Amino acid sequence: MIYPMYIDGEWYTKEGSSRDVVSPATGEVIGTVTPAGFEEVDRALKAADREKGNLEKMTVFERSEMLFRIADAIDAHKEELAKMIAMEMGKPYHTEALGEVGGSALAFRDAAEQIKWMSSEIPSVREKNVHVYAYRKPVGVFTIITPFNFPLCTASCYYLAPGLAAGNTILWLPPMSCSAVASLFMKCFEEAKVPKGMINMVIGTSQEAKTAAVVHPLTAGIGFTGSTKTGNDIMEKAKAKKSLMELGGNGPVVVLKDADLEKAAEGILAGSFGNAGQICTSTERVLVDDSVADELVKIILSKMDRYVVGNPMDEKTTMGPVHNRSTVDTVMEHVQDAIEKGAKVVSEHWGKVEGAPTEHYLYPTVIDHVSKDALLNIEETFGPVVPLVRFKEESEIMDLIAMSPYGLAAGVYTEDLKKGMQMAEEMRFGYVNINSGSSYWDWTFPAGGAGGSQSGYGRSGGKWSILEMSEERCVSVNLN
Amino acid sequence: MIYPMYIDGEWYTKEGSSRDVVSPATGEVIGTVTPAGFEEVDRALKAADREKGNLEKMTVFERSEMLFRIADAIDAHKEELAKMIAMEMGKPYHTEALGEVGGSALAFRDAAEQIKWMSSEIPSVREKNVHVYAYRKPVGVFTIITPFNFPLCTASCYYLAPGLAAGNTILWLPPMSCSAVASLFMKCFEEAKVPKGMINMVIGTSQEAKTAAVVHPLTAGIGFTGSTKTGNDIMEKAKAKKSLMELGGNGPVVVLKDADLEKAAEGILAGSFGNAGQICTSTERVLVDDSVADELVKIILSKMDRYVVGNPMDEKTTMGPVHNRSTVDTVMEHVQDAIEKGAKVVSEHWGKVEGAPTEHYLYPTVIDHVSKDALLNIEETFGPVVPLVRFKEESEIMDLIAMSPYGLAAGVYTEDLKKGMQMAEEMRFGYVNINSGSSYWDWTFPAGGAGGSQSGYGRSGGKWSILEMSEERCVSVNLN
Amino acid sequence: MIYPMYIDGEWYTKEGSSRDVVSPATGEVIGTVTPAGFEEVDRALKAADREKGNLEKMTVFERSEMLFRIADAIDAHKEELAKMIAMEMGKPYHTEALGEVGGSALAFRDAAEQIKWMSSEIPSVREKNVHVYAYRKPVGVFTIITPFNFPLCTASCYYLAPGLAAGNTILWLPPMSCSAVASLFMKCFEEAKVPKGMINMVIGTSQEAKTAAVVHPLTAGIGFTGSTKTGNDIMEKAKAKKSLMELGGNGPVVVLKDADLEKAAEGILAGSFGNAGQICTSTERVLVDDSVADELVKIILSKMDRYVVGNPMDEKTTMGPVHNRSTVDTVMEHVQDAIEKGAKVVSEHWGKVEGAPTEHYLYPTVIDHVSKDALLNIEETFGPVVPLVRFKEESEIMDLIAMSPYGLAAGVYTEDLKKGMQMAEEMRFGYVNINSGSSYWDWTFPAGGAGGSQSGYGRSGGKWSILEMSEERCVSVNLN
Amino acid sequence: MIYPMYIDGEWYTKEGSSRDVVSPATGEVIGTVTPAGFEEVDRALKAADREKGNLEKMTVFERSEMLFRIADAIDAHKEELAKMIAMEMGKPYHTEALGEVGGSALAFRDAAEQIKWMSSEIPSVREKNVHVYAYRKPVGVFTIITPFNFPLCTASCYYLAPGLAAGNTILWLPPMSCSAVASLFMKCFEEAKVPKGMINMVIGTSQEAKTAAVVHPLTAGIGFTGSTKTGNDIMEKAKAKKSLMELGGNGPVVVLKDADLEKAAEGILAGSFGNAGQICTSTERVLVDDSVADELVKIILSKMDRYVVGNPMDEKTTMGPVHNRSTVDTVMEHVQDAIEKGAKVVSEHWGKVEGAPTEHYLYPTVIDHVSKDALLNIEETFGPVVPLVRFKEESEIMDLIAMSPYGLAAGVYTEDLKKGMQMAEEMRFGYVNINSGSSYWDWTFPAGGAGGSQSGYGRSGGKWSILEMSEERCVSVNLN
Repeated sequence: MIYPMYIDGEWYTKEGSSRDVVSPATGEVIGTVTPAGFEEVDRALKAADREKGNLEKMTVFERSEMLFRIADAIDAHKEELAKMIAMEMGKPYHTEALGEVGGSALAFRDAAEQIKWMSSEIPSVREKNVHVYAYRKPVGVFTIITPFNFPLCTASCYYLAPGLAAGNTILWLPPMSCSAVASLFMKCFEEAKVPKGMINMVIGTSQEAKTAAVVHPLTAGIGFTGSTKTGNDIMEKAKAKKSLMELGGNGPVVVLKDADLEKAAEGILAGSFGNAGQICTSTERVLVDDSVADELVKIILSKMDRYVVGNPMDEKTTMGPVHNRSTVDTVMEHVQDAIEKGAKVVSEHWGKVEGAPTEHYLYPTVIDHVSKDALLNIEETFGPVVPLVRFKEESEIMDLIAMSPYGLAAGVYTEDLKKGMQMAEEMRFGYVNINSGSSYWDWTFPAGGAGGSQSGYGRSGGKWSILEMSEERCVSVNLN
Repeated sequence: MIYPMYIDGEWYTKEGSSRDVVSPATGEVIGTVTPAGFEEVDRALKAADREKGNLEKMTVFERSEMLFRIADAIDAHKEELAKMIAMEMGKPYHTEALGEVGGSALAFRDAAEQIKWMSSEIPSVREKNVHVYAYRKPVGVFTIITPFNFPLCTASCYYLAPGLAAGNTILWLPPMSCSAVASLFMKCFEEAKVPKGMINMVIGTSQEAKTAAVVHPLTAGIGFTGSTKTGNDIMEKAKAKKSLMELGGNGPVVVLKDADLEKAAEGILAGSFGNAGQICTSTERVLVDDSVADELVKIILSKMDRYVVGNPMDEKTTMGPVHNRSTVDTVMEHVQDAIEKGAKVVSEHWGKVEGAPTEHYLYPTVIDHVSKDALLNIEETFGPVVPLVRFKEESEIMDLIAMSPYGLAAGVYTEDLKKGMQMAEEMRFGYVNINSGSSYWDWTFPAGGAGGSQSGYGRSGGKWSILEMSEERCVSVNLN
Repeated sequence: MIYPMYIDGEWYTKEGSSRDVVSPATGEVIGTVTPAGFEEVDRALKAADREKGNLEKMTVFERSEMLFRIADAIDAHKEELAKMIAMEMGKPYHTEALGEVGGSALAFRDAAEQIKWMSSEIPSVREKNVHVYAYRKPVGVFTIITPFNFPLCTASCYYLAPGLAAGNTILWLPPMSCSAVASLFMKCFEEAKVPKGMINMVIGTSQEAKTAAVVHPLTAGIGFTGSTKTGNDIMEKAKAKKSLMELGGNGPVVVLKDADLEKAAEGILAGSFGNAGQICTSTERVLVDDSVADELVKIILSKMDRYVVGNPMDEKTTMGPVHNRSTVDTVMEHVQDAIEKGAKVVSEHWGKVEGAPTEHYLYPTVIDHVSKDALLNIEETFGPVVPLVRFKEESEIMDLIAMSPYGLAAGVYTEDLKKGMQMAEEMRFGYVNINSGSSYWDWTFPAGGAGGSQSGYGRSGGKWSILEMSEERCVSVNLN
Repeated sequence: MIYPMYIDGEWYTKEGSSRDVVSPATGEVIGTVTPAGFEEVDRALKAADREKGNLEKMTVFERSEMLFRIADAIDAHKEELAKMIAMEMGKPYHTEALGEVGGSALAFRDAAEQIKWMSSEIPSVREKNVHVYAYRKPVGVFTIITPFNFPLCTASCYYLAPGLAAGNTILWLPPMSCSAVASLFMKCFEEAKVPKGMINMVIGTSQEAKTAAVVHPLTAGIGFTGSTKTGNDIMEKAKAKKSLMELGGNGPVVVLKDADLEKAAEGILAGSFGNAGQICTSTERVLVDDSVADELVKIILSKMDRYVVGNPMDEKTTMGPVHNRSTVDTVMEHVQDAIEKGAKVVSEHWGKVEGAPTEHYLYPTVIDHVSKDALLNIEETFGPVVPLVRFKEESEIMDLIAMSPYGLAAGVYTEDLKKGMQMAEEMRFGYVNINSGSSYWDWTFPAGGAGGSQSGYGRSGGKWSILEMSEERCVSVNLN
């Protein structure tokens, strides 16, 4: 089956272009896509540009109704979409893929509500009898580039729902390796009667189509979630364009000696093994007080049997394969590096699952005594690993954290809230969760990289994406 | 006299580097600066980075007091600063330079007040007994690059005052040709006892030092005001960094047939000849209904004698030279081009003032019957010209406007406010002034390019710069 | 059939108390209610007080879901509720009562959304390392007293929906003459599984039960919509309690000589005859420029045949009887008074409809040349009358307006928006609609009496009721 | 010397009316005032009403400048005002009265800043092409009634500064016993060139003039700080008028067993003995864990020598007399009652200071083992007493608190911030300070009674008073 693009309200496959969609779970070809080039990007952006005025002119109540229809359509295709996520991306159908679809619908519902209640503003001015109205207005056409880990949810929460709510028309470039589910997803917009041209989805070979889209003069804004390296590449090409960048993370979770270790273990497991560790806010390292580290490890290990690696469609499966080979390689490399630097794997297994249908299956891994200079402590691993870095004195913590250039999300476990709040003030992260894991987040609060870190800029989630994807356009009225 | 840089609280001149400061008004050398290279930029950024935590930790009340001290220091040096602006940049001392210094002090006073009253936010979250605090925090280190036209005021209003208020430390790169006044300006920060390293000013050859500063890993954010081309060059190098770009404008003023022509003429003159036309929101073109154009021209011409071109320090002078040769060349080229395409100069003079001390003196020029395809209607001229483009039907207006890729500021004159407001809704500009000129603006409302235009992004002025130069950093507290 | 009260989740009828519900449309007894005394009020308030902590502790997301369930239940009973409104209150089923039920459901949906997106605030404080969180919290127990004109919608929009959303528990005292529909309405809350005690509805003889409720120490806040006189009586008893008062209005619509008379006529008719004139923001008087008054009257008269007075359940009916005898009397008195002072009825009929089933049927009336000192210009009439007061000079307008002590809502028709906006600045009304009638309103913007008028205080509608029915409760945390 | 009233810009003394101003510190007559009746109130309100439009029309920038001038004038009279506060009210000149004057000036500076940066709002509406502007506007004329404890600061912070900032004209009724300092204070408004009639100060016998003022039809809003009883009396007369009520408090400070006792002792002493206990947020009772109570008492007693009772003008004095006889009587009664119920005075002294110049001098008193049913635990004492109520189990705390009907301010001392925050959620107080005393407050955050308590309603301080003293007045513009 060919999974078409969606350009200007039409389903489109490109002649002479073809690429198999291969399931990381089975290695099977589950469909075909036809990668686009400049021509498709250009057509999509022209459609988006043509429609931007029409979307802007819809009242926020009209846009809200449209977004509710989209959410309803997503819910109506819940199983179909979740199944494709499971097969194409690799996450378990029952425990994760269904939730992702639900979360995507929720993003549209939240934005549908929020946009109605975000007032514009009337600032005071010095000139007598002059009124200034600072209307919130859309930016225009947004090009959105999203990653594979939450193929629908990241796109929906961060960009598509708030972007449309704010009145922007959109060109969406999903990752090539999750194009099929993106194609299915577009059916929801068609069913919701989103006027043609307001949202467009183009499938392309990674850099070529993306570059064409971001440099295109009709692209007014860019929303990107992905690696720091790609983010930089994109902006080098895009130059001075309004942009939102959600880049890498290396989320530490700090466990102080007075922490509730049971709760900490829960937060760490959810953070490290959720989505097989492929979350930008995954718990990529645990900085733990040496005096409680043994106990923490013990508790973590006692819960390992809840992680069953297997086929994503299998009801017993709670962890699927990782999505791609480069993730497999990074995990293997980072763990190997840590071992060489003195770390010790304490989980029963690590590395690739023998006899698995593909080489993408990795054991959930717990590795202790990871050294400060290990890649696990420095770089983003993006796989199912709990690396424990022990410290003897709390004064070491900030140095351990500073080994990594990222500043996305962190967690701190301590029963001393005062110390927790003081630490959170010290840590330059987009957010710090006290007594929740690094990956705890709600649609309703702003996520994004801390200033000066390699984790990007702009704030996503809730009304914050709407704020980022809109701008003040002022009208002054001189009544003199 | 050598005008030193200000790096980490020290006055610094670079050995072996030297460049004359030449007055555009007299051609005389009025001082010397010593352009910097990577080394100075690096030292300044390291100082800014070292101090960012200290500035962040100051309460907003402490920062506010510091900003008030800066404003007081600026006021205390009002004449000295204004004189240097007049001589180095070229604008009249009495009618404009003094006002610019006052406006710069005001920027610090406004920011000093605003930062105290900008609350942070507590969003609601779904999880019971979890509180999330979305604190407003600084981004970190900002590199600020500003233009010559308002050498102190643009820097102060858009970046320095709000940037420090928000808690960011700063590296400021003024334009080479206005380095001396920037150097004098830094004395105000020293007198105000701004802790060393929090604000740094480096003088450099335009592209080299700037590139070094923007690509530097310690630069977390970039604030730039200048041409669209330079803005693009900067961001190509800076890649994925938080940025604010205030770029070019080609501010139309639309005069409908029912307009109060007297008021329109006033707004146009202020917009076209203020600062010798060197404002990003200057009235760069007047789109006027043919049926009232003759009358409008007559009124404009009747007021021309208020513009006296001369030495900026002369009390009678109301228009000085334009700042640099490239502006002279652009004006000459654009007017010549318009004439060739059928326009007619209706002011007594145009072009260079004969017998002036330098070649920078231009006559204030009114040119009628400018054609749609003339450069004056399409590009940014940035000089003292009122170009009138006539239309016969109001339906032509949007097409005339669309000839230019900019979308910064516009004015509409009509006694029919309803039509004015409807037109303002149609026009995609950062702001549209109904019955005020394109250059009407107040510190208190957000300025910036409309989405999709070549006029940049981000909003400056009032609290908006503070918003742009700060970010939410969330702390969640789990009370379960 | 007996229509019971709803106290602490129980349906209750009071022994030994009984009163017929008589339809103003037919004079028939359509049911029975059993008026309450102190005992019932006390029980209801004790239940509300007991539950206030539980409602407060529900997250806003939980409350939101509850409100959506209520809205769904209202929609499910749409016809039944609308029919009872028509029979008990008197408004036409098809053209008005169904809309009122829909509007009531919408009030719950709007509040369900708004409460989720209304953040709390973190103000800055001078003390270092002290954080202050100004949480939005409910006030506690609200006693709500509402009028007959929109028996469900006023209660829902202004108090019940926003009050519950904000976390307040409620005692609702509907008007005796619309108790049956209030009783039916409570079924929706029961079906929506609102925990018992959170909302209570008590039927009582007007003053006795109301006084008991407002003076009760467990009543923390009072929400009242009704006449200025009753509002004053209530607060005399309630003394220093948080209160919201939506009182009388005498909404002028001003028609200037350049007005679009067709639009003005439409706004006036909707404002004067909608709900048979029984709206607090009804168009109670039209101040019209003498030079266009004849034409305006002509247009108004040409549209009179759309108002068909008749039985509210009849499909052709567009105007029902007025609700009670005192309204009939006021209308008769005010029109008679105006005639005596020189006014002239220009509609075909006025006064009571001969041969109608009850004495509540009034003809829609247009009366011209009403004098400045006529009661129609001074007092609230609250019936289906368009009184035209002519002026010769616009300078007379403010004096004409000032004859009445009310300041709720007004309309101004003029094609000169500038003049309209200037007039709106001069007029001290809760809101002024330029080129819409006095009764134009949207759930989303704040309504209420202007300061110093007899129209009450507090703002209702949209998030404003939520703001009024909540309060900041601060927690400071000293991290030193 | 006669201290005149200030009505409509004129200094006024009433013939045939005269009353001595007697110092509570020395018993000496320090001046004369001439109490007013209805006539003066009426004249003042007519002036305020006449000027309300003029003040409303001033831009917020103009109002801001006026407020800054007032603040400057207050500072210029600092010593004179402080001396009169000390002599007329009784608080120590050096340690308290000077600070009160400074705080009053600060209130005007804060409001002068805040009003400029409080935007109005543009809500979204369903109707297409209709814009609604919800302008923040003044209420009109406010009658302000304030207490003796902070004769200038309460009036300034809560009402005068924010009230004028919001654009309201004012009639101020200071307490009779602090009329002289109010009279001096008005000079600052005259010097600041506040246009006449915008602020008026009338001296009157407590109830008569107050009643005349609040019932007066020109009074649109009422701001009152004082006892719950008087607040109720006022509102009984005022009926349905917009009102702000800051009523009584009985501020508990809770000390848990893990508290930092040193810090707790500091907070308690400041809270109980500051202003000789005459603060609405005074620490009126200390609820302390029995296991640390002995230690807490010991620390408190060790610091008692810093409280030197004496003449307010004496440099060594840190506590003056209490202001009036009824306060003396209440303190004596409450302490006596506690002793009778088993409490034990542990400070060296209690009761009246022997040999003092007047009977207003009380010893700072520490009394331990106060029983739950003692008046000290139930009622507002308003004098220099630290009453310790011991509990054995933390489960008793909420019951102890609930003995008193007030809900103004509280403090909680514990090193377990989580428990502190949980307790703060449980406690229904206007604010709860964790690890600060009950009287810790900053101009910048909202103060006021919790819903349902006897401590009033409305929020004062910072921008909150401005919000309470302004209202949305909407203008809708129909562009169809």
